[in-house]
Amino acid sequence: MATRTVFFLSDRTGITVDVFGSSLLSQFDGIDFNRIYIPYLDTEEKLEDAIRRIEAAAEAEHHPPLVFSTLVQGQLRERLRHSNCSVYDLFDTFISAMERDLESHSVCAVGRSHGIGNLEEYERRVESMNFTLSYDDGARLTNLERADVILLGVSRSGKTPTCLYLSLHYGIYAANYPLTQDDLDHGGLPRALAAHKPLLFGLTIIPERLAKIREARRPGSSYASLETCRREVRQAEELYQREGIPLVNSSSLSIEEIATAVMHRMNLMRHS
Amino acid sequence: MATRTVFFLSDRTGITVDVFGSSLLSQFDGIDFNRIYIPYLDTEEKLEDAIRRIEAAAEAEHHPPLVFSTLVQGQLRERLRHSNCSVYDLFDTFISAMERDLESHSVCAVGRSHGIGNLEEYERRVESMNFTLSYDDGARLTNLERADVILLGVSRSGKTPTCLYLSLHYGIYAANYPLTQDDLDHGGLPRALAAHKPLLFGLTIIPERLAKIREARRPGSSYASLETCRREVRQAEELYQREGIPLVNSSSLSIEEIATAVMHRMNLMRHS
Repeated sequence: MATRTVFFLSDRTGITVDVFGSSLLSQFDGIDFNRIYIPYLDTEEKLEDAIRRIEAAAEAEHHPPLVFSTLVQGQLRERLRHSNCSVYDLFDTFISAMERDLESHSVCAVGRSHGIGNLEEYERRVESMNFTLSYDDGARLTNLERADVILLGVSRSGKTPTCLYLSLHYGIYAANYPLTQDDLDHGGLPRALAAHKPLLFGLTIIPERLAKIREARRPGSSYASLETCRREVRQAEELYQREGIPLVNSSSLSIEEIATAVMHRMNLMRHS
Repeated sequence: MATRTVFFLSDRTGITVDVFGSSLLSQFDGIDFNRIYIPYLDTEEKLEDAIRRIEAAAEAEHHPPLVFSTLVQGQLRERLRHSNCSVYDLFDTFISAMERDLESHSVCAVGRSHGIGNLEEYERRVESMNFTLSYDDGARLTNLERADVILLGVSRSGKTPTCLYLSLHYGIYAANYPLTQDDLDHGGLPRALAAHKPLLFGLTIIPERLAKIREARRPGSSYASLETCRREVRQAEELYQREGIPLVNSSSLSIEEIATAVMHRMNLMRHS
């Protein structure tokens, strides 16, 4: 497999340039990308260092490396263009057209997109994270009406990471409730949840995958057996269907994908 | 303030198009952007719906709206270009140049950049999240050597959200330890941490901001008083300095910024 070195240059966190470049690289198969992240690149000295690394990679690979950049400072971008690489520059590419469309000048300010924004928004995210932590795994069942959404699912179906992602990214108050064997045998909605039906969202998962995940935690247990997993998943899915609870199958989804599916299906508004 | 409607179109989660567009919009001040997110736009019918909303906005505002797009399907992109809007299309813009530079054809596949990737990577993120949850707020002090980093700070200085971000995004095993009044009066490193000094990273915060955050939790308490906050922050900073512990001031940083600063300063490798 061919190897190509790719640089991600940013004058601040590097989150934007990572998403920007990774999204484009994901459209190419059969190439092994050696990714080098250089965030907080905000002086000419640091840029010269980066350029030395870029030129060394060009020489070693006999190809100019790809460089994704969200550098805001004009003179850094100008210098970068004169090095031995293919620059993909988010701002150079789009800002002029946007200035025309918006009939406005851009401010060329560093670190805008992942900065603190307003304090209220930050606090909303921290508050929703605290809510999510204290309502994790059915730990608390009082005042559930404060939740924006309540995720249901059998043990290890992805509830906690999804809830944390929802709160950290979108400021969503996300509770979750584990469907226990008792709940599943009983068949109806757990009593504490019945009053909050419009907030419920179900996660399901392929039994084989669930068994693999549980096996890593408790090897050889009945909890991890394929038989148990099959029964629990079937019972959970029957419950969702009977009660008209929307659901997604988390088996082939990333945490981000499960979280955005919940936002979309439940019509939740982001608070960040 | 002028209002302009901006659409974010994606055939999957919408995370890439959100970061892409928001980063560019952050460079424009004095305009009130009305943001409309349309993820999971993967059929011609859904696109026609979206175009109706776009055209309605164009008419209402007497300006064609800005449309950021990461639609992968060629025929959807083609149709979008013929509607009344200014399209900023990530793939149209860069893919041809990348195909030349990489001497390779792109695969035009949907949902690549925030998909599950490989299972190992997913499991690493979930495992690191479980680690982070069980080592939150000094809850556990055994086997701390498993951590990639241990955040220190006084109560409410941003440790927990930062640790969760580090684990969810980068697969980092992030523990955190709250500096209590006893620790601060004692002055030295808490005993449980002394053996793990290279893993320690300190958070600090402006006392006025800390007081405001604590006041929202426990109004009128001595815990929230400016005097207490000033003393604790001073003692914590003295401890970091005495022990040579790297630190950041979280006061004006977002969760993402604190997390990426920790990654950068501690030279941590992402596992996702």
